[in-house]
Amino acid sequence: MTPTFTLGLDYGTNSVRCLIVRTSDGKEFGSCVVNYPSGQQGVLLDAKDHHLARQHPGDYLVGLEKSVRGALAQAKKQRGFSVARVIGLGVDTTGSSPLPVDLNNVPLAMAREWRKNLHAQCWLWKDHTGWREAAKITALAAQHRPQYIAKCGNTYSSEWFWSKIWHCLNVAPAVFDAAYSWVELADWVPSVLAGVTDPGKIRRGVCMAGHKALYCDEWGGLPDQEFLAMLDPKLAALRDRLYERAHDATALAGRLSEVWAARLGLPAGLPIAIGEMDVHYGAIGSGVREGTLVKVIGTSTCDCGVVSAAKTVPDIPGICGIVKGAILPGFYGLEAGQSAVGDIFKWWVEVVCGGDDRRHAVLTQQAAKLRPGESGLVALDWNNGNRTILVDPTLSGLLLGQTLHTTQAEIYRALIEATAFGARAIIERFKEYGVPIDRVVCAGGIAEKNPLLMQIYADVTGCTMLVAGSSQACALGAAVGAAVVAGAYPDFPSAQAKMTSLKKTAYRPKAANQRVYHELYGIYRQLHDALGGLNRSADLSAVMKQLLAIKEATRA
Amino acid sequence: MTPTFTLGLDYGTNSVRCLIVRTSDGKEFGSCVVNYPSGQQGVLLDAKDHHLARQHPGDYLVGLEKSVRGALAQAKKQRGFSVARVIGLGVDTTGSSPLPVDLNNVPLAMAREWRKNLHAQCWLWKDHTGWREAAKITALAAQHRPQYIAKCGNTYSSEWFWSKIWHCLNVAPAVFDAAYSWVELADWVPSVLAGVTDPGKIRRGVCMAGHKALYCDEWGGLPDQEFLAMLDPKLAALRDRLYERAHDATALAGRLSEVWAARLGLPAGLPIAIGEMDVHYGAIGSGVREGTLVKVIGTSTCDCGVVSAAKTVPDIPGICGIVKGAILPGFYGLEAGQSAVGDIFKWWVEVVCGGDDRRHAVLTQQAAKLRPGESGLVALDWNNGNRTILVDPTLSGLLLGQTLHTTQAEIYRALIEATAFGARAIIERFKEYGVPIDRVVCAGGIAEKNPLLMQIYADVTGCTMLVAGSSQACALGAAVGAAVVAGAYPDFPSAQAKMTSLKKTAYRPKAANQRVYHELYGIYRQLHDALGGLNRSADLSAVMKQLLAIKEATRA
Repeated sequence: MTPTFTLGLDYGTNSVRCLIVRTSDGKEFGSCVVNYPSGQQGVLLDAKDHHLARQHPGDYLVGLEKSVRGALAQAKKQRGFSVARVIGLGVDTTGSSPLPVDLNNVPLAMAREWRKNLHAQCWLWKDHTGWREAAKITALAAQHRPQYIAKCGNTYSSEWFWSKIWHCLNVAPAVFDAAYSWVELADWVPSVLAGVTDPGKIRRGVCMAGHKALYCDEWGGLPDQEFLAMLDPKLAALRDRLYERAHDATALAGRLSEVWAARLGLPAGLPIAIGEMDVHYGAIGSGVREGTLVKVIGTSTCDCGVVSAAKTVPDIPGICGIVKGAILPGFYGLEAGQSAVGDIFKWWVEVVCGGDDRRHAVLTQQAAKLRPGESGLVALDWNNGNRTILVDPTLSGLLLGQTLHTTQAEIYRALIEATAFGARAIIERFKEYGVPIDRVVCAGGIAEKNPLLMQIYADVTGCTMLVAGSSQACALGAAVGAAVVAGAYPDFPSAQAKMTSLKKTAYRPKAANQRVYHELYGIYRQLHDALGGLNRSADLSAVMKQLLAIKEATRA
Repeated sequence: MTPTFTLGLDYGTNSVRCLIVRTSDGKEFGSCVVNYPSGQQGVLLDAKDHHLARQHPGDYLVGLEKSVRGALAQAKKQRGFSVARVIGLGVDTTGSSPLPVDLNNVPLAMAREWRKNLHAQCWLWKDHTGWREAAKITALAAQHRPQYIAKCGNTYSSEWFWSKIWHCLNVAPAVFDAAYSWVELADWVPSVLAGVTDPGKIRRGVCMAGHKALYCDEWGGLPDQEFLAMLDPKLAALRDRLYERAHDATALAGRLSEVWAARLGLPAGLPIAIGEMDVHYGAIGSGVREGTLVKVIGTSTCDCGVVSAAKTVPDIPGICGIVKGAILPGFYGLEAGQSAVGDIFKWWVEVVCGGDDRRHAVLTQQAAKLRPGESGLVALDWNNGNRTILVDPTLSGLLLGQTLHTTQAEIYRALIEATAFGARAIIERFKEYGVPIDRVVCAGGIAEKNPLLMQIYADVTGCTMLVAGSSQACALGAAVGAAVVAGAYPDFPSAQAKMTSLKKTAYRPKAANQRVYHELYGIYRQLHDALGGLNRSADLSAVMKQLLAIKEATRA
């Protein structure tokens, strides 16, 4: 049989990657990463507001062309590859990352008038400027449309579509007024590739629409105008300029336009899979199925699971999304996450300790020599707020137990442990509500490169940590999606069976470490519940003494 | 009138200083510092136990000879000085820093057999290894002799005499058995100078005996044998080899022996003032009087006040010592403190940030540019436990409010603020119990060199911060003591009036900063009370949000 190939385009926080794989087995034939040229590592920041994170849309187009051409150049050197055998492409991006576009589907920020306006850019997933708006949406929905937020853990997030757009309307009404519509990045890139010049004709994915834009078939799509008018009449008016229906990954986003085919050096007319969030395609690329929790561990962590659409999934407090078709067609997609994981380590090593990658390596080595509990420290993993299970971006970090001898490496390890405790809280929440988890597969750079973190996660959660076979699980998932819409496979499970795999290394929990971490998790939860508002009459008087007792027992 | 001179010897944590001053006006004629040669900056540590801090007694003798000879050499170059005009000397040391001695008043650690044994050394003030013993003494006293601990804030400290000696008995019984007696460093140095070779003949100061050894005239001196036997019969037996009576600073510790006169190049027979704790003589050298709080701010902070012995001073919970004659004869000496102040900044800059003095300077400069509340951080100043008002060495540090953007300088400032909040808690406790404070005088290197810290202290406490005129307030106080016992003055107040002064610079509270810090102090107290055990049903759910609100208000 003649081999065929698909492209997966993965738009991350700092860069875009194009991956070319063989559809028969997922083997990589070409790959190319392009860093976004603007801002700090691709992110536009505001020194006066740590909640703000934007991206210049022009970077996406520069990166698109360079990464596809780079990957193709590499693939062309491989035996068996030819451009003519490329049968489709898929796109994943960060999200919720909406951008304002004009009547012709051109981002406002591409016009000279708005180029330097931070509010006219793409509002990156980790932008939390809309936290006040999020709180208002939560309160209004709780009162008037409880069903809207029941499916997203009863709390609407500042990271999502309406919080951001409403915040734009509040702080930059001129930008809001100049925008004809708003599009999620995951829908916008495929629409550009497909040559869509009318925002009303963009085929939107349910993955992004789902809880993030409060879309649900149950209530007829997006939130009704009456509700949106309670926020602001201008948002109610915007509804008409958005979309009626959102689609799962069985739908086609479009076909590659002549213009973009020429720019990329690909055949025109190629099918383009519907865009999904990076981690959703990442879950597919990591082999997600019922009973599997996929953890994509990067700057932040996203946790994805699926439950057959034939079953009933309860609303789960604090779990940020339960959306039919959001990940795999035919399944409910369940999504949870931690707002900062790698970002916390990066903060510690680079911002505080003033180090670089080598410092990361040295600290990892030193931290690996410590035993659980030995430092006497415990931390909360909230430097960027808490996405699950508290859903509160206004929370912040905490470090407790330091003495006059506490070292960089001890704190580094405590921060890793803090993210592990956060991971355990999420797994426990899923299980409490009957979501089966019999397998945990981790993907992302940290999962591959940091055995210390992976072992700590195994010891803290009590789960064996498996690692996705591909280093590019998200891009691979997009390529799997492309293979399915191109007809190489009848459905996702059969495509996943052939195209995805696991690495041989698995991290199994060690009983002795589990015991200590079980105690430390108890302390973490005391602090978590007290400072996160779950326990409003907390007795924390023993916390420091418990840590000291654990420390002394470990050192004895 | 022919000028006369006295020497003040100040044994600090890392070095010893000899200061030579003119008795008529306190003018410095000579000064010499000698660093202790052993351990890390003079302190013997144990990597396995951060509570341990010891010092080699040989270092005291090396430092004694070098510092006196160095100061004399300097003074001899000044017009009007001659060795023959030296009329007395005084000694202050850290405390409670007891050391085990043999039958001849020779420290055990000077014998080859014990030289390397950490338990045979001087047990430095900041050694907390006896924290379990301290807790037991507190519990036993509460049950059987409540009066014993009523005068030391109802909690006996691990930093004090009996905790340390009992801990030695528990972990190193051979050392305990080999010791004939135990002597506070402040009593031992004068006894060596005076040629005392029988521990029973050492004249002990009430300053060290006071609450630290639970000595009080009210109950006939040291704790009774029945009580000590409840701890351990060997401690009861030790009582007979200690002392019957302790003296205030009107007494003479002895006269300079021929041997040490020759070694130091001083006239034999010079009167030696009774030894006091460094900060007590420091308070005298800073002009302490009724209504004045002296803060000696260094690696830790000691707060000293006096109240006329003719008045009644109530027992004050958490204030670690109320002892008649401990500071000024004829007054109750009141003592409080913070276990780590400069040590916390040193930890942050040197241990965590890996910097040096230049880094201190850079961070101070950056921190000075921040406004109160701007960082969104709050910290607890407990990296070395809490001496006042919680009296609990098993507490540890806390930092709260960090984001992914929090910098070294922001944390540095938060740590300074934490120590300022701790200082405010102490001042409030004194005032609550009717101790008048109408003047705050700060002494020590930090008070002189860190205007940022001084302004923060003024803004947080609402008190104008005055600065002692001498950079060597402790040594000066010892020299004042020497001038009084040598008869240059009839009493301490008249000696202080002539020999001590204030610097011109005073730090006055700024109203705008006071308002923000008042809010932040409220948050500090919430955490302080919850984690320190004063509030066992704390609602901390709003803490992070309050910090964020203050931060945003400051940045707006």
